[in-house]
Amino acid sequence: MSAFAPRRLLQRPLPFSIPRPSSAQASPLARLPIIRSAPCSSTSRQCSPDSHKPNDIDIRTYLKQSHDRIFESNKKWAVQRSKEDPEFFAKLSAGQQPDYLWIGCSDSRIPAEAITGLGPGEMFIHRNIANLVPNTDLNVMSVVEYAVRHLKVKHIVVCGHYGCGGVKAAMEPHDLGILNPWLRNIRDVYRLHEKELDGILDEEKRYERLVELNVVEQCRNVIKTAAVQKSYMEGGFPVVHGWVFGFKDGLLKDLEIGFEGVLGGIRKIYDLTKETKGN
Amino acid sequence: MSAFAPRRLLQRPLPFSIPRPSSAQASPLARLPIIRSAPCSSTSRQCSPDSHKPNDIDIRTYLKQSHDRIFESNKKWAVQRSKEDPEFFAKLSAGQQPDYLWIGCSDSRIPAEAITGLGPGEMFIHRNIANLVPNTDLNVMSVVEYAVRHLKVKHIVVCGHYGCGGVKAAMEPHDLGILNPWLRNIRDVYRLHEKELDGILDEEKRYERLVELNVVEQCRNVIKTAAVQKSYMEGGFPVVHGWVFGFKDGLLKDLEIGFEGVLGGIRKIYDLTKETKGN
Amino acid sequence: MSAFAPRRLLQRPLPFSIPRPSSAQASPLARLPIIRSAPCSSTSRQCSPDSHKPNDIDIRTYLKQSHDRIFESNKKWAVQRSKEDPEFFAKLSAGQQPDYLWIGCSDSRIPAEAITGLGPGEMFIHRNIANLVPNTDLNVMSVVEYAVRHLKVKHIVVCGHYGCGGVKAAMEPHDLGILNPWLRNIRDVYRLHEKELDGILDEEKRYERLVELNVVEQCRNVIKTAAVQKSYMEGGFPVVHGWVFGFKDGLLKDLEIGFEGVLGGIRKIYDLTKETKGN
Amino acid sequence: MSAFAPRRLLQRPLPFSIPRPSSAQASPLARLPIIRSAPCSSTSRQCSPDSHKPNDIDIRTYLKQSHDRIFESNKKWAVQRSKEDPEFFAKLSAGQQPDYLWIGCSDSRIPAEAITGLGPGEMFIHRNIANLVPNTDLNVMSVVEYAVRHLKVKHIVVCGHYGCGGVKAAMEPHDLGILNPWLRNIRDVYRLHEKELDGILDEEKRYERLVELNVVEQCRNVIKTAAVQKSYMEGGFPVVHGWVFGFKDGLLKDLEIGFEGVLGGIRKIYDLTKETKGN
Repeated sequence: MSAFAPRRLLQRPLPFSIPRPSSAQASPLARLPIIRSAPCSSTSRQCSPDSHKPNDIDIRTYLKQSHDRIFESNKKWAVQRSKEDPEFFAKLSAGQQPDYLWIGCSDSRIPAEAITGLGPGEMFIHRNIANLVPNTDLNVMSVVEYAVRHLKVKHIVVCGHYGCGGVKAAMEPHDLGILNPWLRNIRDVYRLHEKELDGILDEEKRYERLVELNVVEQCRNVIKTAAVQKSYMEGGFPVVHGWVFGFKDGLLKDLEIGFEGVLGGIRKIYDLTKETKGN
Repeated sequence: MSAFAPRRLLQRPLPFSIPRPSSAQASPLARLPIIRSAPCSSTSRQCSPDSHKPNDIDIRTYLKQSHDRIFESNKKWAVQRSKEDPEFFAKLSAGQQPDYLWIGCSDSRIPAEAITGLGPGEMFIHRNIANLVPNTDLNVMSVVEYAVRHLKVKHIVVCGHYGCGGVKAAMEPHDLGILNPWLRNIRDVYRLHEKELDGILDEEKRYERLVELNVVEQCRNVIKTAAVQKSYMEGGFPVVHGWVFGFKDGLLKDLEIGFEGVLGGIRKIYDLTKETKGN
Repeated sequence: MSAFAPRRLLQRPLPFSIPRPSSAQASPLARLPIIRSAPCSSTSRQCSPDSHKPNDIDIRTYLKQSHDRIFESNKKWAVQRSKEDPEFFAKLSAGQQPDYLWIGCSDSRIPAEAITGLGPGEMFIHRNIANLVPNTDLNVMSVVEYAVRHLKVKHIVVCGHYGCGGVKAAMEPHDLGILNPWLRNIRDVYRLHEKELDGILDEEKRYERLVELNVVEQCRNVIKTAAVQKSYMEGGFPVVHGWVFGFKDGLLKDLEIGFEGVLGGIRKIYDLTKETKGN
Repeated sequence: MSAFAPRRLLQRPLPFSIPRPSSAQASPLARLPIIRSAPCSSTSRQCSPDSHKPNDIDIRTYLKQSHDRIFESNKKWAVQRSKEDPEFFAKLSAGQQPDYLWIGCSDSRIPAEAITGLGPGEMFIHRNIANLVPNTDLNVMSVVEYAVRHLKVKHIVVCGHYGCGGVKAAMEPHDLGILNPWLRNIRDVYRLHEKELDGILDEEKRYERLVELNVVEQCRNVIKTAAVQKSYMEGGFPVVHGWVFGFKDGLLKDLEIGFEGVLGGIRKIYDLTKETKGN
């Protein structure tokens, strides 16, 4: 890992300079998409006290500056929006009517609205680690239910991305504590497609394919829901899509999961379209 | 609610015209921040068949157009980014080092990156219905764990917004099926602050205060985690912030929860800083 | 299903007679292991008001009697235990040191302690619908963690049973609301073994095999945990077993999952035995 | 804690002798109701290899014997049941019609069926660590839904017990990893009743009161569900009870939560009795 910090360069120009205290810097592992043990992370007891005790004044200054800068940017944004369209905020207050539900990764490099060109009010958004849709996760299940039955979205997009740290971390043989159960979902994807994945000799390509297959499986999980099955049967929507975002070119790749075919296959086992009285 | 659809106006100009089939339109309830039963929603059996059977050709055309338009926009975005900075995507590929974790609402009108002015690589993002952080929700707990222990973020922002449909829906006496358990968390917030809220006579103001108190309580939930307590004790960060976004002016309001004070109060009951061997 | 109520006969003799009000009786569907819509369940609006409004006095009397009877039985039990062993409760107070963790179904016909002959203090117990161990379910994950790392159990038993209502309900094409996500785990088991199950033409036998395969898959889920993998590597225990209980003969059937073989296969994808520093 | 192992004495006489290998014994902490770090637990690296490497032959012998003994006991139980009532298993096969739902602790010392005197088919059972009913826990929520809407139980019992290891562990300032989120629910109970609990100077009595208040709060969580509210409004049942089991005398204590009063208070904030069309 070079000393060159990519974060510094990626961000838009700051309104003022914030020198980052060296001791407060994210550990080198954070720059990689893979979780690794840092040689001397801040929670390690083997390190000398000096090496991980940041300079308190530096930290506090940095925390204040990096806090205040957001409010500066926010004010500028609000002024700019009003300038461009004096009724912008009046319309925003009127309500939302999104056609899209986006289920994407929490990764900081995928601003869903920007890369899709969608404006405020158009896309309902859920983002979690590795864009997962576990059967029994009430968080994402509530999102799908609300988006389909109440907002009546037309498209549900599950969007993964190559170089996903969550996907890579999931495949490392490490005990990550509270992260284990969540990441285990990705290993379940591996198991479902073990033969295909084991047949890919190049490690990078195998990860890329796992990223794709993870998206496909999460699409299946979305389609398994009663909300999606019933809404589609009654109204012809929503359609579920599996996409992958690539950092190298900024492009979305449509995996073309073949929604109707998947839905048909799922109906055999997961059909939930008949109502049970009294429930 | 006027027949005038705000969504149409909010969005950026489309590269081509997409006539929305009337039968595929989101039900009027979607425009309101409150979940209500529509007089003739697509799942209602009282309506005549004609009134809710959309014209299949219209729907399919609309679905295709509204799908393709994203890929058009995405290509333009990628070209534009490369023009502005030829190394943009090379830097993006290098990894993320975010200083901020954003826990916000799924509402389509709050593009977190845009309103904070943060660029790609700067903010790790989780969004769910009503920006909740339930104790036992592995989805958001995994996000906090990863952001604090692996990415070493400096700030955790819980950001609510006035006019939150989730908060209002939670307080309506309706059985919302699978949404009940999730929204019940908001009722728990109400219970914790019943006296204060009942003392606010104006209904709109009472909801606004509930939105704020919900943010404060979710901040408490974040601070209860072992990850935050330990990291702060060892390194002086992250700091947890409670903000509210207003549609009327586009501004972020800092609720100034007083992180250190809250942390101190929480430590009495929720202190998790001592390690237990062998776990 | 005959009008003959099996419950009445199964239970031990009551200390006094409790006439069950007819209107308060469980709907006929409850007697079957399959969830079905009752022709006139108490939540149905098509029924005449008389048919589902129980006689309030009858209900209240029945509720009181069926409540009080427990306390009568409990007192008798406590007296009996003390008679048999005057130090019984002193020992009970001293703590637990269970060798077994039982993960079984909530079904009322499987008293885990009785059918295994284990006494108080010997078996830590978790029971849920269809004895499931979903990756991301914190409830059962907490049970496994506590049992393995703190109580150091030697055996973990996942015990299913033939005629499981949860397993059958899961395969019916009905929208069961909040039950959908939980039961979907069973459909995932079906999908993993679709070919084998589809090859079984007799429906009853297919369900029986699904019950068994569900147990096998839940055993796998237990073995995927870091707690089990690490404890076994270090101490040679716990061993994970898959059993099925049969109502017809009251016998436990050992599915002989071949713990070490399964563990070996799982290690390839789910190995969590290496520690990551700083977590 | 004496070296005297209570487990040995509590259990019913074994059909054959199983010498427990000393190295395979549960760590001393397991005997206590409080989770503590053992001086030399099996996952600790500070211990010499000899001290925690059990004798493999001993372990394997013990594992086999403690496995086989269950099947011996099971066969005896089945024979005994058939002797007492030749139609016992035929009735068991006919289905379940339980009047009670029991939500209790996983603790190995509380055989729910035995202490209540209820027979097979009478009580649907869920047991987890510290008898919790978190809002968003799909495991227990599915149990409540199934028991109320499908089995139409008349009573729901939340039963805690004095000397609960989970409750004590929850209040210790230790990072228990994956157990943290689950146990945090108990700290939330503490917070809700901080004034009362802080006023109890005797630590043991404070814990006993926390055990009781935890039961009361979990009863509230049960009553918050739409299933319970609707069923009670329509049919006058189920009634929710809060009980505590005492190891010292084996008796159940009814906390007399005053179901109707609690329900009334909850209705103000948590009323879910109105149906929303189309959901």
